[in-house]
Parts: sequence; C-alpha cells; structure tokens
Amino acid sequence: MWSNNLTKTLGIKYPIVQAPMLGITTPAMVAVISNADALGSLPVGGLTTDKTVQLIQQTKALTDKPFAVNLFAHDIPETLDMKVIEGMQDLLEHFTNEHKILFQRTSLFDLRFHSYKEQIQVLLDENISIVSFTFGILDDDSINALKQKNVLLIGTATCVEEAQLLDKKGIDIITTQGIEAGGHRGSFLNTNDLPMIGSMSLIPQIVAAVHKPVLAAGGIHNGKTIQAALALGAQGLQPGSVFIGCTESAASDAHKSLLEKSKDTDTVLTNAYTGRWARGLSNAFTKALQEHAVDIPPYPIQMGLIASLRNMATTGPNLFMPVWAGQSAAAAFSRKDAATILHDMIAGAENISR
Amino acid sequence: MWSNNLTKTLGIKYPIVQAPMLGITTPAMVAVISNADALGSLPVGGLTTDKTVQLIQQTKALTDKPFAVNLFAHDIPETLDMKVIEGMQDLLEHFTNEHKILFQRTSLFDLRFHSYKEQIQVLLDENISIVSFTFGILDDDSINALKQKNVLLIGTATCVEEAQLLDKKGIDIITTQGIEAGGHRGSFLNTNDLPMIGSMSLIPQIVAAVHKPVLAAGGIHNGKTIQAALALGAQGLQPGSVFIGCTESAASDAHKSLLEKSKDTDTVLTNAYTGRWARGLSNAFTKALQEHAVDIPPYPIQMGLIASLRNMATTGPNLFMPVWAGQSAAAAFSRKDAATILHDMIAGAENISR
Repeated sequence: MWSNNLTKTLGIKYPIVQAPMLGITTPAMVAVISNADALGSLPVGGLTTDKTVQLIQQTKALTDKPFAVNLFAHDIPETLDMKVIEGMQDLLEHFTNEHKILFQRTSLFDLRFHSYKEQIQVLLDENISIVSFTFGILDDDSINALKQKNVLLIGTATCVEEAQLLDKKGIDIITTQGIEAGGHRGSFLNTNDLPMIGSMSLIPQIVAAVHKPVLAAGGIHNGKTIQAALALGAQGLQPGSVFIGCTESAASDAHKSLLEKSKDTDTVLTNAYTGRWARGLSNAFTKALQEHAVDIPPYPIQMGLIASLRNMATTGPNLFMPVWAGQSAAAAFSRKDAATILHDMIAGAENISR
Repeated sequence: MWSNNLTKTLGIKYPIVQAPMLGITTPAMVAVISNADALGSLPVGGLTTDKTVQLIQQTKALTDKPFAVNLFAHDIPETLDMKVIEGMQDLLEHFTNEHKILFQRTSLFDLRFHSYKEQIQVLLDENISIVSFTFGILDDDSINALKQKNVLLIGTATCVEEAQLLDKKGIDIITTQGIEAGGHRGSFLNTNDLPMIGSMSLIPQIVAAVHKPVLAAGGIHNGKTIQAALALGAQGLQPGSVFIGCTESAASDAHKSLLEKSKDTDTVLTNAYTGRWARGLSNAFTKALQEHAVDIPPYPIQMGLIASLRNMATTGPNLFMPVWAGQSAAAAFSRKDAATILHDMIAGAENISR
C-alpha cells in the first residue's frame, strides 16, 4: 500500500517524513527514522555553517540512509525600526519584572543572524541529497546550485497560491501545512493576513492545483490520520508533534510534562517568540503580548530580543517557555522511542487498509 | 459501505446530512436530499413560531421522508449595553456614509428576538423526529420534552469538552464542526477564546472522547473528503458549502457569483454581522470592523442592528453582503441541482473504496 511517486522519488519504503523541529529534533531522532526506511529531517534553520556541518556529521555517523536537511528560506531584515524594538524591550522588561524573572535587554550589537544562503555550500559539500525548506522559496541561485547536484527539493505551502509558486519554481515535493500543525507557519505570500486553512480543505485543493507529490503536515499522528491524508490525495505524511515526547527528543522534561497535561484547545497561534506566527501552548507570555497589542519586531529580530529568556528553567506554571505543539499534540503525546512511534503509526494505517 | 450506527439511528441509507444554512437552505433543498435517502436539515434558528410551522409544512408537502429541523440553542441577552450599541450605530453610519450606502439606525424598540424555547412545542406538534442544534445545548426541559416523544437529537461541538458535555446530556449524535466550516461557529463553552481546531485534529479526538456517533462538518464536499472523514472515525458527513450554488438554493445570483469567483484564502472568521463568529468571504465591511477594533454587541443584537443592510442589493465589488462560505467553498462550488451534487459525492466516495 505504501509505494507511490513520493516513495520512489525519495527512495524510501514508507512515505513518512519526520517533521524538522528545531530545538526538538536531534541527529539521533533523524537517524532512527531514516534507518527505519522512512525519512528523517534535520532542522538547521538559522544556524551557523559550523553548527550545520556538526549536526550533519553527527547524523551521518548514525545512519547511512538519506535524510532531509531543513532550511528557513527567509530574508534577513535590512533595516531595524528602533521605536518598535524599544517598545518591545520595554514590554519585556515590564513582563519579566511583574513575574520576577531575571531579564537583561539584548544589545543590538549582539544580534547575529545567518542566512540560509551561507548554508547552501555546506549542504553541497556534505552531499546532502534532500533539502526541505519553509518560510519562503529558496532564491534562484540556490535552487540551481542544488538542482545541478540532483538534490531533491521539498517546499512548504499554506495555501494554493504558495503551492503553485513552488511548483512553478521546480520544487519536487510540496508540503501542505494545515492549520493543525505545530511550530512556525510556513506562510510567505501574505504574512499579515495569514492563511489559516484546515487540512481537510487545504490538502485536496493543493493536490488539484499542482503537478508534484504532496506531503501532508498538520494533525498526522496515527493510522487514522495517515489514511485520511492519503484519502485527500497526499502521497506522504509529515508527523511532528507525535515525536516531541520520544526518547530521542531534545525537549526538556518540563516541556514534555506540559505537553502531556495539555488538551485540544490549549494551543494558540502566536508571534510573541520570534516575530513569525507559530502554534504552541498558550501561557502568560503569549497572553500578555496578545493583550498589549504592541508591534512585534519581524523574524528573526524578536527571537533575538528574547534570546536570554528562551531557555529559562521553569518551575510551577509555565509563564514563558515556548512549547510548540500542533492541535493533536495532546492526543499524540508518547514517551516511547521514535522507532516504536513510527512503527505504531505504520501498523495502525496498515490495519485499517486490511 | 454506508451502513453504520448513524444510518441505523437516523433510518437513512447514506450517512450524509445536508448542513442547515439559514437564508440558503430551502424546503425544496431539504426535501430533495431526504428523498434521495440522505438527510435534509431545515434551518429555523431565530425564526418566529409561525414561520417555523410554515417552513416545516412546506417541506412536508415535498417529502414523506424524515428531515432534521435545526435550532439555535442560545440565550437572549437580558441586558443591553447602550454604550456599545451607540458605538456600533456610529460605526455603521460612518461606514455606510463612506461607501454611499443608505442606512437608517435601527430603533431598539423594533428589535424582536425569538428563543428556541418557543419553537419546541411547534416541533412536537409537527411530529418532527430529528432535531439538530448549535450555539449551545438545549435546556433540560426541552431535551426531556423532545426525548419523551423519541425525537433524535444532534448537537454541535467545536472541541472535546463541548462534545463531552453533549454526550453527558444524552444527545444522540455529535457534529464535529472543524475550523474549515462555513457560517456560524457552534462554539458555546469559550466564545471569547474560540476553539479553532481543524478537522484532522478535531474529528479523531472527539471520536475518542464520546460514546455517540460523530457527524463531520467542515470541508466535506466530494468523495475524497468523505473518505477522509470516515477514516478519522466519523460515521456521518455534513456538507454545506457545496449546496450554496445549487438550483434549490435561496442564495442570490450575486451571492453565487461571488462564491464562484472566490479562492481558498478568501474566507475569514468575522463577528461583524451577528455578534457571533462565522466564516464567510471577507469584504470592505468585515475589514472595517476588524480594523476599528470596536466592541461588537452580542448575538443576536448585532444582527438586529444591521438588519436593514443585510439584504441590500450589491452591484460591483462586494462591500457589505454576507457570503457565508467554508474553506472548500470555492473548490466545491456547483450550480447543479442538489440531488445531482449529492449523487456525485456518493459515487465519488464509492469509487475510491472500490
């Protein structure tokens, strides 16, 4: 039941791609999934070239199978709006004072942002055969350089128009990111008026509009959801949240516990952490920024401003910690190892189709 | 492939329930669907008892088969906040002046609201055998009165907790309204912090949490989406938008044309028209109310305030007309008759499972 254009294109047995989750996905997770004849994805969005090489080599040490490397295909803002940044620093100071959290204003001189363009040569040098990306479309030079070395490209779309653009640019596989998905939205055409389309509507409309295999992301976590996405015309599945609690995950114990105790209505879309919209558990910080309706600096500036807070240890209720999660994350939560989680999903889908 | 608990409970062949769409669904549409061995739904939410009787009798004249009658299970506000109402009247005056639309302030003495409680006796007198409802849960007296006459009850949930409440109250079938769905959100537990869960996450979580058959609403419009919802554990399907353009629809030509020309990203959730959140095509009015961030009077007060504008004829771009539509409405649009649309969906689903 599993063989299709997508498995043939990627050279894998099961059309299941573990979603790249920066801060959660480890080389061990990627390798386990690829070793199990599915496809692991190593997230390196925004990292330095040194760190990128290091993570790729760690993964290669654990698997001989292909894995995808995932980039953030965004532009670095060329100007900074100091008034917006000052306003945000004031708000952060107010919020952290109120909650007795230690906070030091980030010096703008300390902000360092890395473009994916710096990473392309690393991927070529490391003979990476599959590159996925989100937040936009790779520039033409990067696409050409990768295609010349027969690298397969996977892009992310949140509406039909984005998918058509990826198709036109020659991207090989298109990921449909339904509104159910956890983490950052991949939207890039209309980021002020974010497409918020559920998978039930998004997958069939994109499948009908493009000429490439479609990989479904958002809500996929078991046999039923795999079968549903396949029925909608997807050829592949990209589960993410189901792996957050696994043994190979880099998520902290606090992170896992919060997710385990959460329920279906606990996630929100917030741009509080990075300046880009992302889905995660709501908390005092996401609510504060929503209520203050203050201008939020664009990605990745906002991420830089809160850098000192991101890894703050939490005890008690979660005031600040970002816990990215999809709308099925609570139902999907598991502390098993990644291979078992993958095998359970595959067996679940096979049982239904029997 | 179609027989299950839901078809047995409802006494129909195909587990497809045409969604009740007030202002769109006609007795003719209801009768055609019920005559085709599925289930039509007659919307009477907020109507007078006289109008309710009239519509039921018109439907009965066209079919001997059972059909559902759909109520709005909300409470009428007991107090009016005059400051909020004045603010809205000012905004409406400003908006209509700007766009050269004739507008007269609604006199609050002219507002008349009708509770579903007045309609219950009508449904009993007319021997209605299936009653569906949204916006809340019927009060215990109404539930008891209907159950004593063996009326089947169908309630609407937008998150697990709402579904569990309906289950506990003895409601027979639970409709899961995914965020894809057009028209009003049925949310009733947390209307300030609206659950916005996509069907891919909502259906399996509600199926796992309740002991009643589940009817999936939101994005259902063809064989693929029917198969997907069934894979997620739904036993029935409630398509709506796919019937807006049909010959039996009460939608105006302008309404149909706007929908036909729309695309996947054109719908928004807005509370501009009625005070309750609903999904429809965005236009100058929904944008104006979003931008002004003014307090919007609760349902059904806001609906009363804009009553004179609702049926305004539109030529040129749509400034004001409410065009309720789900996230698949553009893809689903059809001008065929309702029976053909239904048969096409059924045949599509049967073809896939063969």
